Amino acid sequence: MSARQRDFTLYTYFRSSAAFRVRIALNLKGVKPRQEFVHLLRHEQASANYRALNPQQAVPTLVHDGRALGQSLAIIEYLDEIAPQPPLLPADPFGRARVRQMALAIACEIHPLCNLRVREYLRDALKLSEAEQGEWQKHWIGLGLQAVEEMAGAGRFCFGDKPTLADVCLIPQLFNARRAELELSAYPRLLRIEQAAYELAAFRDAVPKNQPDATPHP
Amino acid sequence: MSARQRDFTLYTYFRSSAAFRVRIALNLKGVKPRQEFVHLLRHEQASANYRALNPQQAVPTLVHDGRALGQSLAIIEYLDEIAPQPPLLPADPFGRARVRQMALAIACEIHPLCNLRVREYLRDALKLSEAEQGEWQKHWIGLGLQAVEEMAGAGRFCFGDKPTLADVCLIPQLFNARRAELELSAYPRLLRIEQAAYELAAFRDAVPKNQPDATPHP
Repeated sequence: MSARQRDFTLYTYFRSSAAFRVRIALNLKGVKPRQEFVHLLRHEQASANYRALNPQQAVPTLVHDGRALGQSLAIIEYLDEIAPQPPLLPADPFGRARVRQMALAIACEIHPLCNLRVREYLRDALKLSEAEQGEWQKHWIGLGLQAVEEMAGAGRFCFGDKPTLADVCLIPQLFNARRAELELSAYPRLLRIEQAAYELAAFRDAVPKNQPDATPHP
Repeated sequence: MSARQRDFTLYTYFRSSAAFRVRIALNLKGVKPRQEFVHLLRHEQASANYRALNPQQAVPTLVHDGRALGQSLAIIEYLDEIAPQPPLLPADPFGRARVRQMALAIACEIHPLCNLRVREYLRDALKLSEAEQGEWQKHWIGLGLQAVEEMAGAGRFCFGDKPTLADVCLIPQLFNARRAELELSAYPRLLRIEQAAYELAAFRDAVPKNQPDATPHP
């Protein structure tokens, strides 16, 4: 039995950037998990049941053969190891490292500063104004994307002509950048990559509005 | 010629938590790079020369055979691929994913919220008081360590009885938690792991105060 036919369940929320990454990776691999929806704004991630699956109380969680995994990049590397085709990392160690560098530049340096729990802290504990919250997001997203723009190669995607872990992280981040109303014209390579990505159903089908739990309004 | 004998240069700063991780990994692998020091408080990371090596303007950067790599986790995975002994990830995919999950729980959810550039933004752009800055750090470090405490196994280290990528991230984070004056008694497993780690020279030799660029005062 191949990995694709085994029992996968994805705990997800349509608007989560980390869940968006994992949805793209699952689509690229042709893995169709069952889905369970965890409504972040209703704080369903803090329930005792969910916390038993994911002590970080974050989405996504992938359950495979009864074992739960959190952290989107760990999940995607796992998928790439158990279902190697198509590969989401190059074959040579330096190429793999370059792709991981770009993925981590997004996953470590941009996204954690702008996710829901941080935005709630800025609003509720620090009492920042809407404008200050917006500036915060634009500052970190802009700084991070600038670095990725410089690191991206000249190919169709971030590294070469096929999507990798780097693109799987980039596309949800660009989606969030638009929600934060960041002007994106300073990142022409990234916009070109985004266009190439959305030519693929794997990326289009993973977009928040195309999820079963999507709601029209926040 | 083995990977260990080739040309490695590490761009580092003694107090950087990400550089601390890479120093531990290099020590565990027995790789002794040349070192170049990048003084973060003097903003040497923003120089044109350094930026050409690392568009994120962050430490560490590892240059291997003339090619520069940033992002500590990408560097460590690279080292683990080119110098596989001793391994920093388990052999089976699920174990590897669990170790990466713990490493990313630290590298994505704790450290990016508390590093120098964020602390500078809190102080300079948001004009937070010292007390508010301290609360910010304690909040995110505490939340993150609680999740790692729940994820860590019952062995000597985070996963089993040998150090992995998870411990390489945990030990510098505990070091930072102490600098932020977080009370650590709520994390008995992590404290036990820390004790086991510091029995190894690879961890002790990587501590900030033992670096050539260490200064006694900030």
